Amino acid sequence: LRSRLPDVGTTIFSVIGQLSAAHNAINLSQGAPNFPCDPQLIAGVTRAMEANHNQYAPMTGLAALKTALAEKVNTLYGTRYDDECEVLITASASEGIYSAISGLVHPGDEVIYFEPAFDSYAPIVRLQGATPVAIRLTVPEFRVNWDEVRAAITPRTRMIIINTPHNPTGQVFDRADLDALAAITRHTDIIILSDEVYEHVVFDGKIHHSMATHPQLAERSVIICSFGKTFHVTGWRVGYCLAPAALMNEICKIHQFLMFSADTPMQYAFAGYMADPTTYLALAGFYQRKRDLLRTLLADSPFRLLPSAGSFFMLASYGHFSDEPDSDMVQRLIVDHGVATLPLSAFYSDATDNNIIRLSFAKDDATLRAGAQALCQVN
Amino acid sequence: LRSRLPDVGTTIFSVIGQLSAAHNAINLSQGAPNFPCDPQLIAGVTRAMEANHNQYAPMTGLAALKTALAEKVNTLYGTRYDDECEVLITASASEGIYSAISGLVHPGDEVIYFEPAFDSYAPIVRLQGATPVAIRLTVPEFRVNWDEVRAAITPRTRMIIINTPHNPTGQVFDRADLDALAAITRHTDIIILSDEVYEHVVFDGKIHHSMATHPQLAERSVIICSFGKTFHVTGWRVGYCLAPAALMNEICKIHQFLMFSADTPMQYAFAGYMADPTTYLALAGFYQRKRDLLRTLLADSPFRLLPSAGSFFMLASYGHFSDEPDSDMVQRLIVDHGVATLPLSAFYSDATDNNIIRLSFAKDDATLRAGAQALCQVN
Ligand SMILES: CSCCC(=O)C(=O)O
Ligand SMILES: CSCCC(=O)C(=O)O
Repeated sequence: LRSRLPDVGTTIFSVIGQLSAAHNAINLSQGAPNFPCDPQLIAGVTRAMEANHNQYAPMTGLAALKTALAEKVNTLYGTRYDDECEVLITASASEGIYSAISGLVHPGDEVIYFEPAFDSYAPIVRLQGATPVAIRLTVPEFRVNWDEVRAAITPRTRMIIINTPHNPTGQVFDRADLDALAAITRHTDIIILSDEVYEHVVFDGKIHHSMATHPQLAERSVIICSFGKTFHVTGWRVGYCLAPAALMNEICKIHQFLMFSADTPMQYAFAGYMADPTTYLALAGFYQRKRDLLRTLLADSPFRLLPSAGSFFMLASYGHFSDEPDSDMVQRLIVDHGVATLPLSAFYSDATDNNIIRLSFAKDDATLRAGAQALCQVN
Repeated sequence: LRSRLPDVGTTIFSVIGQLSAAHNAINLSQGAPNFPCDPQLIAGVTRAMEANHNQYAPMTGLAALKTALAEKVNTLYGTRYDDECEVLITASASEGIYSAISGLVHPGDEVIYFEPAFDSYAPIVRLQGATPVAIRLTVPEFRVNWDEVRAAITPRTRMIIINTPHNPTGQVFDRADLDALAAITRHTDIIILSDEVYEHVVFDGKIHHSMATHPQLAERSVIICSFGKTFHVTGWRVGYCLAPAALMNEICKIHQFLMFSADTPMQYAFAGYMADPTTYLALAGFYQRKRDLLRTLLADSPFRLLPSAGSFFMLASYGHFSDEPDSDMVQRLIVDHGVATLPLSAFYSDATDNNIIRLSFAKDDATLRAGAQALCQVN
């Protein structure tokens, strides 16, 4: 049997999740909260189901939810999206990323993205018969060198994939990054795919620079967001996508066949819940406290913590006390120390090893304490 | 902006759904029940949410649900699927179809399917850089002529897409169809993609001949099923896929990036609910009564009803009293008569018009009565 993706194995999130469960490890690997969501959200889903909202939602999403999102985005980022044809409710941010790449990238195109990267981008590009072009973020700052991006652009460049706040490094773009991106793409027809699922998780008074804040970028951007990451329900599989109408039209051609529509009761629940902005505006402070707690708890560990300016993640390096590959380190941490993390090498297409692991602090405090205690034992 | 699917517009289900809503029509168009699901299922979702099962499920699905499905399939169809690596929970049957085609069909391949057909098959095949090869079902019996299939097979044929019970015609395969398919594909490496979402909706004492009942076919088949169609919750977006391990491995490579995992609370609810087979075994009788009611109510209508042996659908022809194209007829039925149906031409890639419309009887009796009354006024 010939494979469409011969070099791809099971996603690291699944591999480590299973290994972690098998060893009953404290799980700091996936960006999935282990604490409850707001009971009001659960009540919203139950209410929708009991009101018989259990059949296909409209293909592009529930009107009330799309309207609420268009208002939120206009208020926060100052760009008006037409809720009729520029907002799409997707069945997870993952589905949105897939539909956007599949709808907009043609065979023979090139797509620039930055490594380390979430593991779906490059395979999805390759499935379209297109070529993923990886540009390395600088180590250990994990910033974009925009001169390298400019040099990588060819007449075939169709898309640049951005992710801010960044998974797995926790770095966030500043305004200068957006200006550089705008300057580079001006006078081209390059599309920006901007994965902003951690849009509300930015620390230390910094702000999230959405592509929607920058008119020149907004007009060529597809923005991908997540309800799961924002409302502590990663298993509910609802996200959304914002794009100018012409781009959205092509994305919907994929979404309508791939998924048709996203979960109906969950959409009703989010539509009701979105009205109160405090539900998401408090998120940055909530996760900053968790990041700080984990940093404090790990102060005496052998790991060196890299700064995290946003997202659910923080990198930790250990090259100063061990040169074992990060995948061996992760394996040893699970098996010998009972704590699961992720190897940064899994976020590079060529498995580049920097002796760095990724920690998720989207966990309740007890889990962070237990995980940190285990990490402090390592040597 | 170049389109990946230049000939594709908005899916007919969305177009007619919107038109129907705009005219406040009685909606017999989509295969979506308008009656409640079992309150026990709703309670199951609520229970799962309250037990904090709100984060990512395992990538291939909840173990308890996969085990329950493997048992069900073994009991009903006599084939053992390994619940570890041959059962995949998908976020809708649509997602399963997409992941299977994307994972198994290569650029340059040919995929045989039968028209009229569900509208996603051919575009998904084209997105892989492969060629959909449509074979017409005979009119008006809508059966497969297997000699034509044999003649259509080339060295490039990678997959044959089957759909039984059939949407939109309501026809079902008999054992001889499976034997013919087995004979034709023996000594080839052709994969069968079998869309069996209406597996429990077969009428008049007939039985559903799943590919899983036929060992020679099962070993080359990917079977797609739906919880939404079976349990009256089309908006919950959970389906499943059965396939031999080697095929499943390739399908999972797509699913893991496209979707990662399906809705967690819904999976818990189905896992608990599946234990009692009466929940799905009663479905055939339930829908047979609805089909019969609609046939009785339409006895005096000008439409000629074609036989429906399964699914939620029945075709109705009107060529004896009007030669208007079926899309005009459907438009007129909505605008002038307040009843929404679907044009059969929408299920042909070249919009072949047979002066036939499709009716969905997955509706409560009051809706069937009102819809039939409207259809009886037509002339
Ligand atoms: C399907 S994994 C989604 C992202 C995430 O949670 C992670 O990077 O850990
Ligand atoms: C997304 S439409 C799925 C199938 C169906 O309900 C129909 O054919 O009406």
